[in-house]
Amino acid sequence: MTPNRRAKEAKVSAKKNFYSDNVSGAAPEILAALVAANTGDTAPYGADPTTEGLQARFGSLFETEVEVFPVGTGTAANGLCAAILSAPYGALYVSDSAHVHGNECGGAEFWSGGNARTIPVPGADGKLSASELARLVDEALARPADVPPRAVSISQGTEASTVYTLAEVRAIVEVARARRLWVHMDGARLANAVARLGCSPAEATWKAGVDILSFGASKNGALTAEAVVFFNRELAQSMRYRRRRGGHLFSKMRFLSIQLEAYVANDLWLRNARHANAMARRVRDGLAAIPSVRFRGPTEINFVLVALPQPIWDGLVAEGYSFSRRGAPSERTIRIVCAFDTREEDVDELIATAKRYAADSLPIGARAG
Amino acid sequence: MTPNRRAKEAKVSAKKNFYSDNVSGAAPEILAALVAANTGDTAPYGADPTTEGLQARFGSLFETEVEVFPVGTGTAANGLCAAILSAPYGALYVSDSAHVHGNECGGAEFWSGGNARTIPVPGADGKLSASELARLVDEALARPADVPPRAVSISQGTEASTVYTLAEVRAIVEVARARRLWVHMDGARLANAVARLGCSPAEATWKAGVDILSFGASKNGALTAEAVVFFNRELAQSMRYRRRRGGHLFSKMRFLSIQLEAYVANDLWLRNARHANAMARRVRDGLAAIPSVRFRGPTEINFVLVALPQPIWDGLVAEGYSFSRRGAPSERTIRIVCAFDTREEDVDELIATAKRYAADSLPIGARAG
Amino acid sequence: MTPNRRAKEAKVSAKKNFYSDNVSGAAPEILAALVAANTGDTAPYGADPTTEGLQARFGSLFETEVEVFPVGTGTAANGLCAAILSAPYGALYVSDSAHVHGNECGGAEFWSGGNARTIPVPGADGKLSASELARLVDEALARPADVPPRAVSISQGTEASTVYTLAEVRAIVEVARARRLWVHMDGARLANAVARLGCSPAEATWKAGVDILSFGASKNGALTAEAVVFFNRELAQSMRYRRRRGGHLFSKMRFLSIQLEAYVANDLWLRNARHANAMARRVRDGLAAIPSVRFRGPTEINFVLVALPQPIWDGLVAEGYSFSRRGAPSERTIRIVCAFDTREEDVDELIATAKRYAADSLPIGARAG
Amino acid sequence: MTPNRRAKEAKVSAKKNFYSDNVSGAAPEILAALVAANTGDTAPYGADPTTEGLQARFGSLFETEVEVFPVGTGTAANGLCAAILSAPYGALYVSDSAHVHGNECGGAEFWSGGNARTIPVPGADGKLSASELARLVDEALARPADVPPRAVSISQGTEASTVYTLAEVRAIVEVARARRLWVHMDGARLANAVARLGCSPAEATWKAGVDILSFGASKNGALTAEAVVFFNRELAQSMRYRRRRGGHLFSKMRFLSIQLEAYVANDLWLRNARHANAMARRVRDGLAAIPSVRFRGPTEINFVLVALPQPIWDGLVAEGYSFSRRGAPSERTIRIVCAFDTREEDVDELIATAKRYAADSLPIGARAG
Repeated sequence: MTPNRRAKEAKVSAKKNFYSDNVSGAAPEILAALVAANTGDTAPYGADPTTEGLQARFGSLFETEVEVFPVGTGTAANGLCAAILSAPYGALYVSDSAHVHGNECGGAEFWSGGNARTIPVPGADGKLSASELARLVDEALARPADVPPRAVSISQGTEASTVYTLAEVRAIVEVARARRLWVHMDGARLANAVARLGCSPAEATWKAGVDILSFGASKNGALTAEAVVFFNRELAQSMRYRRRRGGHLFSKMRFLSIQLEAYVANDLWLRNARHANAMARRVRDGLAAIPSVRFRGPTEINFVLVALPQPIWDGLVAEGYSFSRRGAPSERTIRIVCAFDTREEDVDELIATAKRYAADSLPIGARAG
Repeated sequence: MTPNRRAKEAKVSAKKNFYSDNVSGAAPEILAALVAANTGDTAPYGADPTTEGLQARFGSLFETEVEVFPVGTGTAANGLCAAILSAPYGALYVSDSAHVHGNECGGAEFWSGGNARTIPVPGADGKLSASELARLVDEALARPADVPPRAVSISQGTEASTVYTLAEVRAIVEVARARRLWVHMDGARLANAVARLGCSPAEATWKAGVDILSFGASKNGALTAEAVVFFNRELAQSMRYRRRRGGHLFSKMRFLSIQLEAYVANDLWLRNARHANAMARRVRDGLAAIPSVRFRGPTEINFVLVALPQPIWDGLVAEGYSFSRRGAPSERTIRIVCAFDTREEDVDELIATAKRYAADSLPIGARAG
Repeated sequence: MTPNRRAKEAKVSAKKNFYSDNVSGAAPEILAALVAANTGDTAPYGADPTTEGLQARFGSLFETEVEVFPVGTGTAANGLCAAILSAPYGALYVSDSAHVHGNECGGAEFWSGGNARTIPVPGADGKLSASELARLVDEALARPADVPPRAVSISQGTEASTVYTLAEVRAIVEVARARRLWVHMDGARLANAVARLGCSPAEATWKAGVDILSFGASKNGALTAEAVVFFNRELAQSMRYRRRRGGHLFSKMRFLSIQLEAYVANDLWLRNARHANAMARRVRDGLAAIPSVRFRGPTEINFVLVALPQPIWDGLVAEGYSFSRRGAPSERTIRIVCAFDTREEDVDELIATAKRYAADSLPIGARAG
Repeated sequence: MTPNRRAKEAKVSAKKNFYSDNVSGAAPEILAALVAANTGDTAPYGADPTTEGLQARFGSLFETEVEVFPVGTGTAANGLCAAILSAPYGALYVSDSAHVHGNECGGAEFWSGGNARTIPVPGADGKLSASELARLVDEALARPADVPPRAVSISQGTEASTVYTLAEVRAIVEVARARRLWVHMDGARLANAVARLGCSPAEATWKAGVDILSFGASKNGALTAEAVVFFNRELAQSMRYRRRRGGHLFSKMRFLSIQLEAYVANDLWLRNARHANAMARRVRDGLAAIPSVRFRGPTEINFVLVALPQPIWDGLVAEGYSFSRRGAPSERTIRIVCAFDTREEDVDELIATAKRYAADSLPIGARAG
């Protein structure tokens, strides 16, 4: 098979891949920057100009002095934050759908050497509830033999395609501050959340009380780069060493830094996120026209959680579409994810295909005599 | 400044940068592969065809069935190996110059959750001595309250620009096997060692008794990719989980895998290493003509350890050359590192410059009457 | 104050101390054995005859070959078990009232070096539900990025003064075995549970499927001794080292071992437990006669959970009684704990006092016109 | 066998047991205090009056305000100190014979969750050398990728039966302070050292610059009690939690505290230590009269390190004497340990026995024609 033909076939199937925002490749701007960065003088382990320049670049982006540490993955970013915030040891309160709690193989415990525990806080729509947080923390503080509360972690946006309003963030921060907890934000999809909120990056984070941020990029156009951003710079003291021993001080760090630089340059991160959000909105609006389809919560960022009748599900799979499943099989819930490179025509094709199979499908109890 | 002009200036200084093999960029073949990999269907977290294909690719390279796990850095590779080999806990015996002991901020302890200790074994030329290993391990085994020995780690090539002969590796393995120790090889510069030894990758590793290998690539042409290779595949059982919680299961893993694939394709890794080794040889041969220069050990791989008289040192620095220092300042020892992209003319220019400054320089005691 | 008078006063208050089974001193038989053990030849670190003899002593007690490791505290016992069972790392499913989850400051995480997570399983009366266990474990097994399930831990008896029936234990074991989980029993109050069940120690433990047991003694007559008992002796391999580094290999181990020996000799442990259980029963029966008193669950072992009207509560406190509070203050729930040395007359006095104050007290809504 | 006879036989062999200071039982004063403490009102987990009273008791002993935390073993004391001092992580510099380095199964790594590394510093007579300490720490500080130095740990007295002079301690402290290192003292045999130095406990510790002390008691008359004493009380902040999760917050803590109270009451600890030291001196003086005996270093505290000719060695073993061996078998070096309860007549009997066997024994090369 010739390379050209192979690329073309891949193209065909790529447009049916709504499995994850990680299946997309790198944004052209980022890839170009990476290629361009391959020449020129440099230094190992982040002593290069690109990495050093990130400090000012992110300071400008967030309108305040920050310390930025590029790392390879969101799990590393979250784990490092958990280790720092739990020291000498203690609990990190998270939403029950938080990635750091259920999707990182116990990364918080690992990165902290057994010092951190993640405690899920109930809430609706993938968010933790400020009042439930207050209740759980107060209970723990009253038990001298329990793990002491140290921090709260807010996933912005959530694993349920929702976004905390700034008022919601501030309510959580208020509960945290009153109990001397640090505030972490897991911003694996921060771009999508900021695009949704229409606020500034500063308003979404430190102005609302966030101390440390896991700043995501890989889901929105980078290849393999994330960062930890310290608004509370005193917390950064041990970071340099922790990152190195954890294997995230890359010897050729500039190849991560250049991704981050290109990611935030010219608002690329927000443009990409706005597009992904809009494509998810388009998916939702299209599916909403099919009576037998049941949404599972809002669609505020770049993916749709939806329960599909069996015929539609089977039909889409047969046509080569790819999604990830959520919850128990009996619920027939899937996650349809859009990315910065999802095309309108691919969404429209998905909707049209779903509608084709919807004829046979009626919600339970609806196929009346 | 125009981009062209900027690139040109960088070029100028790049050719004087002998600081580390990490200052070089990516090999063109690897960068091209990365760019090409940016399109096409894929899956997240290493379920993609490129990553899955690595198993067979490395199996073929090493002439045996292996399990390969790409990770981002050598520190992660070594830390994961230390964690696995020390379980439930115990000591990893290393050479006293081993990277895992002195250059990874306690990565072995970190990755193992406090279960691993690295114990330096004396030896010459950056290598650990099999007889000293036997002595230290036997002493520890006789002390029931000491950390139990679990593994030995061989850096191939070493931090002293040397290479263990296959007989030396086998002697260490024999000591290890007799005491039920696992054998790890830190192959951050495995390519340079194999190129030097002229043996097959299989002979250099599992055929000599190596159980697990940290397979380096970043120092020799990759951007940000290393791998752990299990010859003893039973040891790999916990790896999948350990790598994920440690933040080295990249969501877009294919961007690491494609680097490794291109790295070993068409013997690129060995061609690059042969070139780097040859350039270091050229540096050494050139410097050897200067009477006041004193070498610090052999030059078997891609760098030269050398003590320079002050005038040469000062002159090179003044001319914009960059090296790293080794040992105490009074020893005036530097490390001159060559890489896959070091050019003959740059080496020759370096030598010529050194010679120019050598006129004023005589070894201590030599400037006689 | 003369010593005699001081002792007498202490006696007075001791009989009003129902705070915890840890406020009682040592059983006379155990103290006598300790004193007697202070002479004679010995060896350090558990190489003494008393410690070595424990293996056979516990083997006989449990009617099977076991390995017994004395340790100082229940937290150490549970932590060591969690570390061993979670290796290389994973989750320990526990009841939501389990001591190891909420009362040991994250001991499981600590002892395992960040490898263990405790996951609370819902249930009634302080017990975990086998079906909820199955549901949660199956969910986790379906999520490749979650902490892998490794073990279930059963507290026998529970923190709610209840006891798992043997059928309940077997149901949990069945769920565990089908999913390849180890089974741990936290037997801090095993004596009370066995006394309640009327079964043999063997039936309560390994015959029901228990792999490892935290064997409690301090709450029931010992001074400072607990033990880990391995029915599955393969799991004991790393214990010797783990205990030492954790600081629970006492240099004068015989002083712990002699406590355990005396504790199980002549059924002392069961006699003590039966008495404590009976005294708790007597407390309950006495309080049951007061209409305004509301019990919080059953009283199957040696303590009573009960909500007291404010006048009774206040009166008892005023009279010098000591209890621990449970739950939110508004619930007015206390735990009244009896021990091996609680005297009938002290219980009767408690009841009489409560009744005296009960006159003023009626349940809410009951003081009708 | 009747109990009386059994006790008598044990008595016989006890007097030949010079294996370790841990083979002795409890001092009568401590045992009596323990027995007396078994009645009276109390509270669990160290909230009892005895434990609370220890703060003032040790404050008075050390002539300054301190925080005291009883724990069960010296390994726990050292491990907790290592964890606190290394935070967030780093290296603890120790003498190469330090217990925490070679005899606690990696306790420092364990207690710190992988954050601490112990680094042996060369020196003579079991002591670390201040100048070597300075050299090693300065080297590490110059390597940004090495484990950062955090603390130095001084074993007072040492494993070589020596004692640091106060000037030696101050010299080490000076090196440490200049490099911002904490100073820990492992005082497993502090009593013997203070008795030897003839200084006050304050002079031996905080007045010389010690921040934290592992205060030993078990080797000198206690059953199972040690303590961590904080002179630098800010370092104690996390101790309460760390001790609990590590399983050294005993539920019946008063049984440890009463041992410590009795241990320091009326100078018992120093009287015991003076006696043990004197008995070791008596052993040494006696053996010195045998020409073929070779001492291995000084005898400044309670044990003698000595190389015995084979006939003496064999003879003593044949007579039922018990020692521990040190170093390689070929060196025939043993450690003869005296304790608070070693009797003069037992020492004299040992010497006489040795002399009896010495007739056949001449030093190598001495049996000339």
